[in-house]
Formats: sequence, C-alpha cells, structure tokens
Amino acid sequence: MSSKRVCLAYSGGLDTSTILKWLILEGYTVVCFLADVGQEEDFPAVEKKALALGAERMIIDNLQQEFVDELIFPAIQCNAIYEDRYLLGTSLARPVIARAQVRAAQKYKCDFLSHGCTGKGNDQVRFELAWKACDPSISIIAPWRLPKFFNRFQGRADLLKFAAENDIPVSSSPKAPWSMDDNLAHCSYESGILEKPELEPPANLWTRTVDPLKAPDVPTKFTLHFAKGIPTKLEIGGEEVVGSLEIFKALNKVGHDNGVGRIDIVESRFIGLKSRGCYDTPGLTIARLAHIDIEGLVLDSRVRTLRDRNVTTEWSQCLYNGMYFSPEREFLENSIVFSQKNVNGQVHMMVYKGSAYVLGRSSETSNLYSEIEASMDTLEGFSPEDTSGFIAIQAIRLEKYGAQKIKDGEPLAKAN
Amino acid sequence: MSSKRVCLAYSGGLDTSTILKWLILEGYTVVCFLADVGQEEDFPAVEKKALALGAERMIIDNLQQEFVDELIFPAIQCNAIYEDRYLLGTSLARPVIARAQVRAAQKYKCDFLSHGCTGKGNDQVRFELAWKACDPSISIIAPWRLPKFFNRFQGRADLLKFAAENDIPVSSSPKAPWSMDDNLAHCSYESGILEKPELEPPANLWTRTVDPLKAPDVPTKFTLHFAKGIPTKLEIGGEEVVGSLEIFKALNKVGHDNGVGRIDIVESRFIGLKSRGCYDTPGLTIARLAHIDIEGLVLDSRVRTLRDRNVTTEWSQCLYNGMYFSPEREFLENSIVFSQKNVNGQVHMMVYKGSAYVLGRSSETSNLYSEIEASMDTLEGFSPEDTSGFIAIQAIRLEKYGAQKIKDGEPLAKAN
Amino acid sequence: MSSKRVCLAYSGGLDTSTILKWLILEGYTVVCFLADVGQEEDFPAVEKKALALGAERMIIDNLQQEFVDELIFPAIQCNAIYEDRYLLGTSLARPVIARAQVRAAQKYKCDFLSHGCTGKGNDQVRFELAWKACDPSISIIAPWRLPKFFNRFQGRADLLKFAAENDIPVSSSPKAPWSMDDNLAHCSYESGILEKPELEPPANLWTRTVDPLKAPDVPTKFTLHFAKGIPTKLEIGGEEVVGSLEIFKALNKVGHDNGVGRIDIVESRFIGLKSRGCYDTPGLTIARLAHIDIEGLVLDSRVRTLRDRNVTTEWSQCLYNGMYFSPEREFLENSIVFSQKNVNGQVHMMVYKGSAYVLGRSSETSNLYSEIEASMDTLEGFSPEDTSGFIAIQAIRLEKYGAQKIKDGEPLAKAN
Amino acid sequence: MSSKRVCLAYSGGLDTSTILKWLILEGYTVVCFLADVGQEEDFPAVEKKALALGAERMIIDNLQQEFVDELIFPAIQCNAIYEDRYLLGTSLARPVIARAQVRAAQKYKCDFLSHGCTGKGNDQVRFELAWKACDPSISIIAPWRLPKFFNRFQGRADLLKFAAENDIPVSSSPKAPWSMDDNLAHCSYESGILEKPELEPPANLWTRTVDPLKAPDVPTKFTLHFAKGIPTKLEIGGEEVVGSLEIFKALNKVGHDNGVGRIDIVESRFIGLKSRGCYDTPGLTIARLAHIDIEGLVLDSRVRTLRDRNVTTEWSQCLYNGMYFSPEREFLENSIVFSQKNVNGQVHMMVYKGSAYVLGRSSETSNLYSEIEASMDTLEGFSPEDTSGFIAIQAIRLEKYGAQKIKDGEPLAKAN
Repeated sequence: MSSKRVCLAYSGGLDTSTILKWLILEGYTVVCFLADVGQEEDFPAVEKKALALGAERMIIDNLQQEFVDELIFPAIQCNAIYEDRYLLGTSLARPVIARAQVRAAQKYKCDFLSHGCTGKGNDQVRFELAWKACDPSISIIAPWRLPKFFNRFQGRADLLKFAAENDIPVSSSPKAPWSMDDNLAHCSYESGILEKPELEPPANLWTRTVDPLKAPDVPTKFTLHFAKGIPTKLEIGGEEVVGSLEIFKALNKVGHDNGVGRIDIVESRFIGLKSRGCYDTPGLTIARLAHIDIEGLVLDSRVRTLRDRNVTTEWSQCLYNGMYFSPEREFLENSIVFSQKNVNGQVHMMVYKGSAYVLGRSSETSNLYSEIEASMDTLEGFSPEDTSGFIAIQAIRLEKYGAQKIKDGEPLAKAN
Repeated sequence: MSSKRVCLAYSGGLDTSTILKWLILEGYTVVCFLADVGQEEDFPAVEKKALALGAERMIIDNLQQEFVDELIFPAIQCNAIYEDRYLLGTSLARPVIARAQVRAAQKYKCDFLSHGCTGKGNDQVRFELAWKACDPSISIIAPWRLPKFFNRFQGRADLLKFAAENDIPVSSSPKAPWSMDDNLAHCSYESGILEKPELEPPANLWTRTVDPLKAPDVPTKFTLHFAKGIPTKLEIGGEEVVGSLEIFKALNKVGHDNGVGRIDIVESRFIGLKSRGCYDTPGLTIARLAHIDIEGLVLDSRVRTLRDRNVTTEWSQCLYNGMYFSPEREFLENSIVFSQKNVNGQVHMMVYKGSAYVLGRSSETSNLYSEIEASMDTLEGFSPEDTSGFIAIQAIRLEKYGAQKIKDGEPLAKAN
Repeated sequence: MSSKRVCLAYSGGLDTSTILKWLILEGYTVVCFLADVGQEEDFPAVEKKALALGAERMIIDNLQQEFVDELIFPAIQCNAIYEDRYLLGTSLARPVIARAQVRAAQKYKCDFLSHGCTGKGNDQVRFELAWKACDPSISIIAPWRLPKFFNRFQGRADLLKFAAENDIPVSSSPKAPWSMDDNLAHCSYESGILEKPELEPPANLWTRTVDPLKAPDVPTKFTLHFAKGIPTKLEIGGEEVVGSLEIFKALNKVGHDNGVGRIDIVESRFIGLKSRGCYDTPGLTIARLAHIDIEGLVLDSRVRTLRDRNVTTEWSQCLYNGMYFSPEREFLENSIVFSQKNVNGQVHMMVYKGSAYVLGRSSETSNLYSEIEASMDTLEGFSPEDTSGFIAIQAIRLEKYGAQKIKDGEPLAKAN
Repeated sequence: MSSKRVCLAYSGGLDTSTILKWLILEGYTVVCFLADVGQEEDFPAVEKKALALGAERMIIDNLQQEFVDELIFPAIQCNAIYEDRYLLGTSLARPVIARAQVRAAQKYKCDFLSHGCTGKGNDQVRFELAWKACDPSISIIAPWRLPKFFNRFQGRADLLKFAAENDIPVSSSPKAPWSMDDNLAHCSYESGILEKPELEPPANLWTRTVDPLKAPDVPTKFTLHFAKGIPTKLEIGGEEVVGSLEIFKALNKVGHDNGVGRIDIVESRFIGLKSRGCYDTPGLTIARLAHIDIEGLVLDSRVRTLRDRNVTTEWSQCLYNGMYFSPEREFLENSIVFSQKNVNGQVHMMVYKGSAYVLGRSSETSNLYSEIEASMDTLEGFSPEDTSGFIAIQAIRLEKYGAQKIKDGEPLAKAN
C-alpha cells in the first residue's frame, strides 16, 4: 500500500533479511538501503538478495568520501577517543549512514525508517537520534524493540525457521561466534564468545590488521603532512599519496600490514550497560598519533589544555552517544576547526609489529618551537633572573599552604 | 662559617661539582644530598667525590619505596598523562627528592637549599616550589640564575677550565650529546642533538628499554592484580611478585626486555617554551594501560567521565608544573582515592616488541559488568521498549534542532 | 489483597486523592505517605482525608532536620545553582522524601511505590531514580504515565467528576491558576498562567517572601558564622541562633520579611523541554551569598577554580536530574567536604527590600588574607622585582602570539 | 635624547605626575597617554598639567565605543564573572587602553611604555602582558618595580616632598582613604581603609550608584532587546535607545539611579595574594542578568552547560589575569560568538532599591520553548510512556549502585 512505505537499513544478513520479509508480510512496501562506508561486502549479492526477497528497490550509496571528510578527519583533528581507548570507528560511520538513509527515504517517499539493531546496543540510539534530527517527520520501526517481533524471534533458531519457511537464503558458512561491524575506520567485534571479558579473543578474529607476531620483521617508515590539522599528503615508499580518501586508505594499508591498532576493552554503553568490544583501527590509530605529535610542536599549550579538557572528550561522547546531529556537536566542532588553524607540518613515523612510533616532526609556519630558545646551552633572548621572579610569585600561595600545614601540625616535609 | 650552610643537590657531574666548589669558595659550608630514586648510579663514587671536593658530608637517601607508594602509584590510579603522551617520570620523582632534601637541610641546620638546574627548565621550578612549600624559612641559591655565576660559566669550556683549576675530576668518557634524567619511573633524554625535533634520536640513546626490533620474538604474558586501583600482585613466568616496589621493578624489567614505553615528543614547558623530550617508561606504561583496562570493567561510567575530565589532566599538570605540594593537588588526590575504592580485579596482558596488549580482565567485587545483561542474545531482565522511550526523550531536543535547521534553510539531511 | 500493597506519596490534593481511590478500586491496599519537609500544610487534615478515602494508614514523616543537614547545607557548601539562577529548592527535597518513602514501603511490606507526578516533569524522574537506587526490588506505579489512567482522566473535569462519584472531598476555595511546591528551601510556582513566559507573575503568587516594595524601610543586619562551610551560628537582633534547622529557619524568616530570593526563569527540564518557573528562596539565597563571600577570604584560589568548574555545576545537575543517589554525586560530595575544611569565619550582612548585601567578613583560622601583604602602601615581605620576572615568563607565549599575528598581517595593536 | 622616548600612562594624579617628572629628570622624552573609557575626569586639566610638567605631548584617546563593542558586550554574551561575584569592570577596560597606548607609542616613535601601577596589583600584569603581545619590540618601564624608584619613594610623604621640590601641583582636596578606578563598566574601590575586610565600607564611597536606601520608592520598568546575545535596543520610559554605547550608558543611568550593582568581596589576585575590593557596576549587572534570562528561553540546554563550564569562567579568568591578547582568549571568544547565534529576544525587567528583577521574556526566533509542550495540562505531541522508558534506562546504573551498597552493608535507604 502506498501509505506504508519503509526504508530499511539492509545488510543482507539473516536479521535484516528476516525483517525485510516480515515487513513485507506486515503489508509494507520496503526500500532497502545499504551504505558503502568502506566495509568488505559483496554489494551486488546484497542487492540481488534484497530484490529476491521482495524489496521494491535496493539503494547502495557510496559514502566513503563524506565519511572521511566529515567524520574521520574531524576525529583526527580533535584526537577523538572514548574512555581513553576507543577511537569510535562505528560511532563515526553512523551519522553519514543515517543521513544518507534519510535522503533515500525522502527521495522514495517513505513514511518509515527501519533498522535491525538490537534493543540493548548503541547503534539503535545513534541511528534513531540522527534520523529524528534529520527528518522529524519520518517515523521509525525498530523491530527488535516491538514485542510482536521480539517475542516471535527469541533466538537464532526462530530466525532460521522463518528463513526456511520464507525462502530466505542463509549462508552455508558457519556464522562467526561474535558480531562484526566493518568500515573504513575500523572493524569491531563483540557479543558471542567475547561476552566473557576475561577470555582472550581468538587469533582469527581480527580482519583489518595482521597479527603483530606475523608482521614484517623490518619497520616501515613514512611521513604524514598536515594542513589545519588535516592530513594532506602521505610520503611512503618513495610515493606521494594525496586526496583525503586515498591518504586514509594508504594509512589503513600500512597499519594493516604491520598489525597496528588492535584494542580490546570493556566500555560503557550509552544505555548504562558495560560491554566488551574488540576493535582494529589501523589508519586512524596512526593518523591520530601523528596529529597529537604535530600539535605538540605547533599548538599553544593553553589552547591545547582547553581543547583537551573541553572538546576532545565531549565531542567523542557526542559521537558515541549518537548526538552527532546536535547543537552541542556543532558548537564543539566550531572550536575544533578554530583550534587547528595553525596545525601545519609533517610527522615522520615508523610502524613495526603492532606499534606506531613518531621519529621526528617539523613545521614551516609555527614560531612556537625555537631551537635557540629551547636550548639549555644558550641564554640568548632569555634572562634567567626572570624565572626567579616567576617562581617567587608562584610560590606565594604555596608558602601559605606549607605554613598552614606546619601550624596544623602536619608539616609537608614529613613523609607519609 | 656556621651562618652560611647550604644543602646542595649533588649528582657528581660536572655542573654540580662546579657548584659545590664554587659555593665553598664563596664561603659556604656545603652538605651534599643525593636521592636514590632508582637511577643507575655509583653512589659510593659520588660520595667520595663530594667529600674530596670539600663537602662537609654527603647524604644519600633511598627514596624508592616512598617514590613508588606516594607518587608512581597515585599516577597509575589516575592514569596520569601530560599533553596526551608524557607519563611524567621526572615530574613524579621531584616531590620526594625535594622533600627529602628539605629534611636533610633541616637535620643539618642548613640556611640554604641549592640545585644545579638551568634557568630554562621545569626542574628548577619543581624543586623550588616544593622547597618553599615544605619549608618557607629556608632560602634558595640557584647558581644558574645568578649573574655572578652564569656570566662566569657561559659554556662547557668555562666549566672544564674551572674544573682543571680546582682539581675537580672530570669523567674521561665523552659526554653524551644530550642530557638524561633517570629514575625508577623512566629515563628522559633532552637537549643537545635532540633540540632538532625533526631528527630521529640515535639508536643508542635509550637505556631503560631494548630496541623493539631487537626484543624477543616470543611475547611474554602476565597478569597484574589491582586493589583500590593499586597494583598488588604480578603473576609472571609462574611466579608471583608482591610488594609495591618489587612489582614495579618487575614491570620495569618485562617492559625493558620487550622494548615497551618509548616516546618522543615536543612538549610545553611550564615557563612557556616548547622543548623536545624522549622518554622510555617501561613499567609505568604497562601499569597505566592495565589500570585503564580494569577501570573499564569496574568503574561507573559517569564517575569515569568526571575523573577523566576533572582529575587526570589537572593532577598531571600539577605534577608537571611542580605544584605537588599545593592545596589543589591535595584536593585532587582526595578525589583519586575516592574514585578507586571499587577498582579491584586482574588484567591479563602481553608484551611484544614495543607494545603492551590487554588480553582479558576480571573482577570478583564489581557488579557493573554482567554477561547476561550485556548479551545481545538474551533479553533477561531487560525490556526493549524502555529503550524506545529513552530514545524518544533524548530526541526531543534534537528534533527541535533539526526543525530549526530546516526552517533556516540548512536541513541536516543534506551532506556538506 | 496482601500481595498488592502500594505506598503512595499522598498530599491530600485532588490528584493524589483520585489516585488513592483509583488504586483501591484497582484492588490495591494503599499505605499513604507524606513527608514534612517544612511546607505549609494541615497534616492532621491530610491524614483524616486519606483514612476516609480508604488508605490502610497514613504515614507523616518529619524530615526537616535531615533535609537541612544532608541536602540544604551541602548545597550551601558548594554554592549549588542550576543554569546560573535556580537554587534547586525542589530538587533538594526530593532525595530525603524519596528515601523516607522507601523506608515506609519497606516497613509496611509494600510491593509498589506510587506518586502523582505528571509525565512531563522533573519530579517523576527524581522520585523514581531515587526509589530504584534505594530499593531496586520495589516496583513503581506512575498513574499519569499509564494509558489506562491518563486516558480516563484527561483534564480537571474528569478528576472532579470522579471525585463527585467517589465521595472525594474537594476544596471549596478556588484552585490557584498555577501549581506550587513548598518546602523549607523554597516555594516553586509553575504551569497554568505561568506558561506564558512573557507575562509577569501576579503579585499574590509569592508565599515565602513579602513583596520587596512592601518590605521594611529599614535594613536588617546580622552575622552568619561558618565552620567547615556549614552555618553554625546566626547573630541577629541581639540574639544568637544555633542548631542547623533553627539557623536555617531564622534565615528564612529574615529573608521572607525583607523580600529576598525571588526569581523568575525559563529552565531546561531533564527530559528536554523548557519550562518557566518562579521560585522564592529566602534563607538559601542569603546563606549561599554568605558562603560565597567567606570562601573569598579563606579558600585557595586554585581550589576554588577547580571546585567551581568541576563540582558546583555538576553536583547541581545531579540534584536537578534526580541523580542524588548515584556514584557520581557521592564522588562529588566527597570533594565538597574536602574543599571546606578551612572554610571557617563569619560574614556580616544586611538585607533590604529584596536584596542581601555583604558588609564585611573575617576568619580566625585562615592565613590566606593578610592585610600587610595585600596593602598597596607597604612592600614588607614582597620583592617587586619578582613580579617583573613573573610577567616576563608569562609573556613568552603571548609575545610569540603577537609576533605571529604581525607576520600574518593582523597585528593585535589594530582595533577591530 | 631622541633615543629614549617613553609613552606613559598618565592620569594627572600624584603618582603618575611624579613618574612623569622623574622620567624627564632621568633623561627621557615623555609622551603622555590617557584613555577615555568613560571615567569621571577633567581631561583638559590633565592635559594642561602634563604639558606643564614637561611632557612632549598629551594624547587623550576616546575608546568608549570600542570598549563597549569589543569588551563589555562580549562579557555580556558569555555572562562573564570572576569568583562568582566580580563582573570584571577594570579587567575589561585594560585591553582597549593597553592597545591604544601601544598605537600611541608606535605613532610617536616611543621606545618604552610606562605606567604607574604598583608591584602587587593586577593592573601591572594586565598592561604589560597586553603591551608585550601587541608590540614585543617596545620595552617597559615599571617604576614601582625599579629599586631606584621604589626605594626613593617609600610612602606618600616622599611623593609629596618630590612634588613640592618639582613644582608638581597637588590637589588641595584631601585624598580619599582608598583608591578608585572608574570606567564605563564600573568604579572599583580598594586599599587604604578597605584593607580591613571585616569593616563595612563608608557610605560615601560609592560613585556609580545611589544608596539603595535612598533610591526611588517606585520601581522602574524597561525592556532590553538582544540579537545574537548583544543588546540592540532599550525601551524605557516610553523611549527607545539604540546604539551600543547609548544603550549601555542608559543602563548605567537606570542602574545608578536605583542603586543596582554594588558588591564587596575578597578576591584572589593573579599574583597569589587575596585583596578586598568594592565595585559598583550598574549597567553591566542589569545587562548580564537580562542576558542570562534570555538564554534560559533560547539556548539549548547542552550548549549552555558546555558554555558555562568551558567558556564563561575561562574567558573571565583570561581577562582578570591580563590574558586578553592570547590564543586562548581568541579560542574562547570564537565559541562565545558561535553560541550566541540564536540568542535573540527581549527581556522585560524592573529595578528597585538595589535589585534588578526579570518580569518576563520572549523570542520570535527560537523554537525551544513551547507553551503547549511545556504545559502540564495537555499531552499533545507527548507520549507519557516514553518517560517510563527514559527513566528505566537511566536507572540501570543507579540500580547497580544501590545493589552494591546493599551488598556492602550500607543501604541507601538508611538516613545518615
């Protein structure tokens, strides 16, 4: 019926194939949508399957360029990180996917947006908050939160039974005992056997990085150039790579080959649960390290402190919690861009068996580092007595503190 | 003369030997002080030299235990880090050294404290602020900021000339073209040839870590236990290490042998200059990673956010800037301790050719992670419809934001 | 039936009387609960009404003392404020009420907790989050969010009809065209005619303060003493008031009589809506001002900055959002207490026609203020040259900034 | 001598007249500079005196417009405040004055800048940091920090003696026993008899506000309009005032006449001392309150929280500490401007005997407040069940917290 059109995020897997069929059986016309954000995927096969199952059409939208330009590079610019470890690979992809799906829904006059995310995860929140911000007029169908659906499909067996009954092809290769989300930024691994956080993930889990133990015995060196905090050129193996997407893919490759960027953490989901996730994030790990390093050379220390304290974590939490399309993210990103206007220069690096190292850096445009000033061997342009005054003034407060401690009978000079 | 007694931080090197002699020539009685904070050092030789040069006495004070317990472990508890990279090895040692030197000065009735730090660095600030807080009644002699001294000794040649004239023994081995500061936490390398931040440091620079390229081809695995955020046991190679100092030394060894903890950065000194520093910090790098990991499992997410934003960076800056003995550090440390009361558990790890990896973690005392709750495969104790309400309420603000954007002619659904 | 026992927050008004009756008709046994947090109320009349309507019993619990000691005074200690204006009167009362109701429910073996809060407000969140933290085993009935209830009672007319049918007495005096929440800390006014934020509230709205225009023509002076940031004595009109509850009531009286503490704001509710609220908060306004003032004299500037940035707003948001019983509130309150250990002294004040003024302050225990040091007329203990060095070092960064601006063709010396 | 030209901040008072004469006697050619930032001053008399004392010329620069536009209005936009009380009147004026003096120094080829600030205060720091940033090539003479000067002039008697010897006219009216700094934003009063912070300032101290006790018995009402957070129109007494300077002066007048904006505090100076200051700040107090109020209506709650936490205090500290011309202030101000793009509307207010009150507010451009949504009387567009889900998800963390407390034997339901 024309009044019940749904745009469904469709991956070709068992879950979303079931949802596709179920929506059709519920009387909806379904437009399937799949974003190409750089994941390993047989796109024609997905399209064929969607159409075979009765989708009105299958839209495959290549978002790699906007993913890199609008999300990954701003993440690099602010050294984004969640809970000190997670580089936000999945979180970064969600806004571009969600936005593109809204565009598709608008183009094909859909009344509903739908996805196959579970009711306990972060992704449902990220998709839906983005959808509601991007087009408040479109309604949402989240089958895994509808009793009618989740009571019917209580486990994989129910899905397989439904598939058999409805001619949904099921992959003959056994399902990995964990779930994955793959994109240009990273591949994530969670649930299944990973839900025991004390157990080491199996060696064959990782897809975007080789095992550090099997990485080349010789390090690879390269130079990454930045302008306004954004990677603009990669010199590697005698070649020059330019173009944001190309640079990022090349960083992914060198990171992959040398086993750089694996992490394994327990994190706090937005909805209040802890979960265990493994991530391999080769290119972003390298680029973030390079960016932190060049900032050391060219960013004013006070601006850095303010940016670290006020922007980095907050922007990362916005992304993690699905608040990309929010006034606060816009507010923060305005600060990011401003902070980066002098972040120009190049970083010389090495990767080797799981690690990335900075070997040196330089900038043509910044006056903040000065070899002469920094030198311990010369006093040119520096009056040592000034430091005496500086220390004396800084000490005023501290002397009072120490004097009070003595008066209170707890002199600081005593060891604890 | 009894009225002019100085307690000098004496290392046995050319600078402080010159200062020792110069102070004596200026009429002071000098008590030399050297802290043992775990550095590579021939302590008897230093003592012998000090006495030969005319020191009244040489005090060598073993501070390793209080260094670990009062500084290094609190740093681990709050994941201390400066400018996203530096683990504060030198900064951490300064408070215990400065305090012990005040105790020595008090014991031997010194009117002055003195050191050989240059006028451009951080250490002069750290020592003097600590001294002034610990005992405001003792005055300070900082020769490298006294015109009488720095005008006389304008370079190494002047020092060598003075040494020759005053029978100060000078090491026959050539001086490394950089300066070092070694302690249990790390060894730092700066100045000299390192003042060109674009040049890679030489391979023979590092002393606390083997070259990752030359590290063992087989990874080493171990388990670190925490109670209240503090390492309490290390299981490695079938052995159990207990005792804070012993654990930390064992972590240093495994880090050293596997090349873990090298960094090379340009940092912002407190006095407003940028400088380049290289650091190898094996044990602290490993322990900090383990601590961050166990916090992922057992620390409430909101407390973690507040601690990360309000305590970690601020405590680190206090230490870096020499403000350990300050009301704000005390205020922050009170928060650190409180935040750690449930940080109990163990982390299974691996080190291999320059990197440390977490392989798994567990805790007997925390209820924050629950395999059943986290599981994507079960809905036990979880009502998926709740998430719908959660999302709907979170979206109220965002829908208004999106609606305003549409009204303003800048719909969010458009790509940039 | 014994298996369906509810503890209902009962105020005696039309809403909760309807709910009481409705619950009974639904088959529940109802224990009514009313906290005495200092509001204007005819408690015996409420009890009589509850029992007449069929409540098993009516519990009236005087919580004034714990309200002052555990909530109001900590709020004073951290200068709590929400969105720069609101002193959190209602938010402060909720935790003690919610906790006491849980105790009552436990004592009388209730399976459910219930309240009459609407589905759009903050109070439902505050009560329920507190209940769930205090006793996760008790379930919640929120009638205004149950379709069965809210569809039946769509407006005041439905409530009145139900009252008539069920012999629920309805007050003969006309209802004020706004709602109120009264307690020791403040009285709030919202909804009804106040929902037009452009209109001035009527003069007869305010209950806890006289109209400033009608306040006495002569100011009233008094002195408030603090120990560890807590009011310990009030000297007023030749009398001394001691005891936390007594002091706070006396401050309320002097504030009331002089029209101090009225505000009128639009605020952001936790659930994402904006609403307009008017509040009169006499005693807390005065005590907060006095506390801020004494901190000026005795609190270290750096600790103050950290407390202001990290604790004040965060603690206030915890309270506003109903997160009193949370790990983060506990974490923050630990900081508050620590910050106050030296906040001792007295503040001399005046109130007059709507305003409170500080006239002077002193402290016997703090060494932070020194008349001699502060004096511009003497240099005792102060070396002016130190300031030159201090400025010179602080300027290093700024000179580079200015030099860069000149190089970039945007010299700072030009006006915009 | 042409090579020794000084541009001196000259006020006509005894201190700067002494410095002027002293500089001339030291062989300098002196260009006097006085900024008109709205203070009460007989400018022709100052000029006459400067020239009579031997100044080469006297520059009087009217900076009122740029003072309002570049400093006062940004302060309003970010609700600037220092230590919860001080509205930064003096701090705000310093950057425009310092910058204009640099321009004067450049125009008249001066090699030095000079001022008459004491060595213990904030203003020396503010002027000098601004000067060094605006033109690092000009040197600074700070007589009150030169031993040659401050040893000669140890008290007022020495100044008067020098004045008598050098034909410096001294005002016959007795000097007030405190010092003042007057500008458009406020007048400050400090030192002298005010250095006893326990004593009430004398009634005749205040110059920019009438005594609240003597203010009109009838309140004055008016409406202040904002666009992008900036006052654009004032409706008062049937008149409309436009133009930033004119609006601000009109606010000053209505504030003055009604005694609004007096504060008396002990504050923390940048150099580590505490000092007592009294300030009357009529217009800025009113405008800041109005701005806070309109933000309540139109600013997203999350952006407000971030701005409050990250920008307001930090910007205020930059100004207080003389860091206006700094990368961090520029960084922060970029955020201020961005945060204000939707801060449009009008605030209806009343002033009466020392207080300002908001009576109502409205905005034509914001959709954040909605009477229908906020209404407790209707459920239009709102699904109450959503709140149940919202609360349930928020409670997940808190239930674990409560459960842990029960397990630890400290159940939250117990009162302390």
